[in-house]
Amino acid sequence: MTNVATLSDADTSVEDIVRKIAADAKAASHALGLVDGETRNAALQAGANAIRDSRPSILTANEKDMAFGRERGLSDAMLDRLLLVDDRIEAMAKGLENIAVLPDPLGRTIDERERPNGLKIARVSVPLGVIGIIYESRPNVTADAGALCLKSGNAAILRGGSESLHSSAAIAQCLKDGLRETGLPEGAIQPIPTRDRAAVGAMLRMSDLIDFIVPRGGRSLIERVMEESRIPVIAHLDGNCHVYLHADADRQMARDIVSNAKMRRTGICGAAESLVIDEAAASDLLPLIVDDLSAAGCEIRGDAAAQQSDARIVAASDDDWGAEYLDKIISVRVVEGPETAIDHINQYGSHHTDSIVTQDTAIAERFLANIDSAIVLHNASTQYADGGEFGMGAEIGIATGKLHARGPVGAEQLTSYKYVVRGDGQCRP
Amino acid sequence: MTNVATLSDADTSVEDIVRKIAADAKAASHALGLVDGETRNAALQAGANAIRDSRPSILTANEKDMAFGRERGLSDAMLDRLLLVDDRIEAMAKGLENIAVLPDPLGRTIDERERPNGLKIARVSVPLGVIGIIYESRPNVTADAGALCLKSGNAAILRGGSESLHSSAAIAQCLKDGLRETGLPEGAIQPIPTRDRAAVGAMLRMSDLIDFIVPRGGRSLIERVMEESRIPVIAHLDGNCHVYLHADADRQMARDIVSNAKMRRTGICGAAESLVIDEAAASDLLPLIVDDLSAAGCEIRGDAAAQQSDARIVAASDDDWGAEYLDKIISVRVVEGPETAIDHINQYGSHHTDSIVTQDTAIAERFLANIDSAIVLHNASTQYADGGEFGMGAEIGIATGKLHARGPVGAEQLTSYKYVVRGDGQCRP
Repeated sequence: MTNVATLSDADTSVEDIVRKIAADAKAASHALGLVDGETRNAALQAGANAIRDSRPSILTANEKDMAFGRERGLSDAMLDRLLLVDDRIEAMAKGLENIAVLPDPLGRTIDERERPNGLKIARVSVPLGVIGIIYESRPNVTADAGALCLKSGNAAILRGGSESLHSSAAIAQCLKDGLRETGLPEGAIQPIPTRDRAAVGAMLRMSDLIDFIVPRGGRSLIERVMEESRIPVIAHLDGNCHVYLHADADRQMARDIVSNAKMRRTGICGAAESLVIDEAAASDLLPLIVDDLSAAGCEIRGDAAAQQSDARIVAASDDDWGAEYLDKIISVRVVEGPETAIDHINQYGSHHTDSIVTQDTAIAERFLANIDSAIVLHNASTQYADGGEFGMGAEIGIATGKLHARGPVGAEQLTSYKYVVRGDGQCRP
Repeated sequence: MTNVATLSDADTSVEDIVRKIAADAKAASHALGLVDGETRNAALQAGANAIRDSRPSILTANEKDMAFGRERGLSDAMLDRLLLVDDRIEAMAKGLENIAVLPDPLGRTIDERERPNGLKIARVSVPLGVIGIIYESRPNVTADAGALCLKSGNAAILRGGSESLHSSAAIAQCLKDGLRETGLPEGAIQPIPTRDRAAVGAMLRMSDLIDFIVPRGGRSLIERVMEESRIPVIAHLDGNCHVYLHADADRQMARDIVSNAKMRRTGICGAAESLVIDEAAASDLLPLIVDDLSAAGCEIRGDAAAQQSDARIVAASDDDWGAEYLDKIISVRVVEGPETAIDHINQYGSHHTDSIVTQDTAIAERFLANIDSAIVLHNASTQYADGGEFGMGAEIGIATGKLHARGPVGAEQLTSYKYVVRGDGQCRP
């Protein structure tokens, strides 16, 4: 971590670079607040066109990054995240278009009332200001995050992973082209043009110019940001997601949902890390689920009761209940019934996303009401925890904090919300 | 400030007391999440009845506090805030009843959508959890804050100023009586039963049990809390509120609003601290306003142009533009027109509450859209910045932060809101 007191000359210049960018972003955010939704959408469409037109230069930039990534010895998985090909470039352009056609989130009247004294009070949506996004070497986040900020009238400062420097710059340039064509300030979308890690520390201290920080990436990145930031952070630290199989779960639906929630992609935050199952269902259902997961190469760690139901289950330690594996591993806890399941999930979960599978609607409603997580699902896979799947076009991240009040804080502002999702067995394809 | 590393035995026991209270609050908050709005309202009504029934014991407790306050040499203003009399006790009971009849803020479906794949997604309001409220020696805050938390299904830990220890305990006991009568856990509303300042530090560190901190009081209290807290804080630091008089302001309305905004009560956060006036209006209007304010004993500090308009105006320094006087002082800035006024207010204001007076609707709309404050008003006094005046029954404080996102953060979650208030000259009586 870079500390102000120990800044070398090189660090000071990084600080200056970041401050200039942040000041431009602040100025641009004021200008963005004055334009209507059509203009912001036109800039998004122009950005999409620029991405398609700039395919060759984006690919060239990406080749440089890939070479650098190989030199640094990135894993195959990380290289794959970094790689851009024609399809992925088209997907970014299409993503911008999808965001452009969404309803305008600004200027919405959220609430309106007339007081007995004749005052008419409206609550209207406005942008947050300047948002700093800190992420790993995934070039497509540059397009997604920049576009979501533009859509919502916020200026974006984009600090991607160092291996994606050239790709991110090329993509950001397309978004800037879109801004310029539409008469919007280019300061509204700016990548950080240096690999120096001191730039991240500088962003986190710049509370006079940056309003929010959104970290996207692994636990160490998010922990560093949460620890070091002087600016409010929108993030989640862990995605320790659960699937709870109630005694009245449809057996085939339970198998499909567990397999999808655990194995569709193991590295995303909505992947299930723990299975909670009623003892009444364990004897007949658990062996079938172990069949499915074992066949897919998943290790299964369970409590004593789970191990009794199926000998292929290895012993779980206490650490397993709180673990986010992001890997082909799942923990299994056998419970007496819904009360114990809810207690277990609220105690060990990370308040991100949890699902119940049952045919009993009353039990489902109890679970949905009592699990204190940002997303709770009934009869659907946890892997639906995604802004795109929710119909938001894209997402800049998933927040597990609850703070959201502005202005007079009455009873209504002392509440947050959760997403209650009712399904009939959907598994994300 | 008490530091964990230097805790004496006495401090350790304070830490233990606070931890026990916070653990009880956490357990109670889970139980509160399960009861319906009618039960929470019944508890509020029972609390109101208990306050009326306990008037003698509340008055006795308050006498002890008043004696202690006099011993400590509290100012007359502070003693007046501490004092309870029959009317003020009845007002607290009535306040609880007013909150009881408000709509239930929990379980509201904020948003609902069905996805093409058949998933029905609803956004539903839920409580925040455990809220720690830290305030000065104002016993009525115990009733207001406790009631708002109960209404919204949150457990409240109430740390009032040390001079109000007995009064707050007596009032909190009434709220607890209401909880017990209704079968709700008494841990839902708990005062901190010690004057030891270490209790505040202990609360601010207890991020595993307390979800939010709400400080109410002077700048030094709020600065300490913001600096020291490991828990998200809902608060505002400054209320540097402006009234902007546009050239087309109705002259009499302008005079009434400025007098009310500045002088109705000078010590509240919604009091105007600065007047911004078009040069086209300064020559005829400013002397009339100086007449009004001078007659009320207000000192007026202005820029050179303001001083030219009226010789009674003394010179303002640069520090005046950002000052929250909370006193009979106002700064005056003469501007060319709306653009300069908006820039000045966004630069020097504290993003709390600002008002424009004008008969020109287009100019008013520009001001309402472009001032980046939690509350913006047209033709009304800044002293309306108050939850009760907004029809919220009461408020636990006014927040000037913008963070409010939970779950997937799409474009809509990257927005906040402001209160846009349109009036026709109202002044708060």
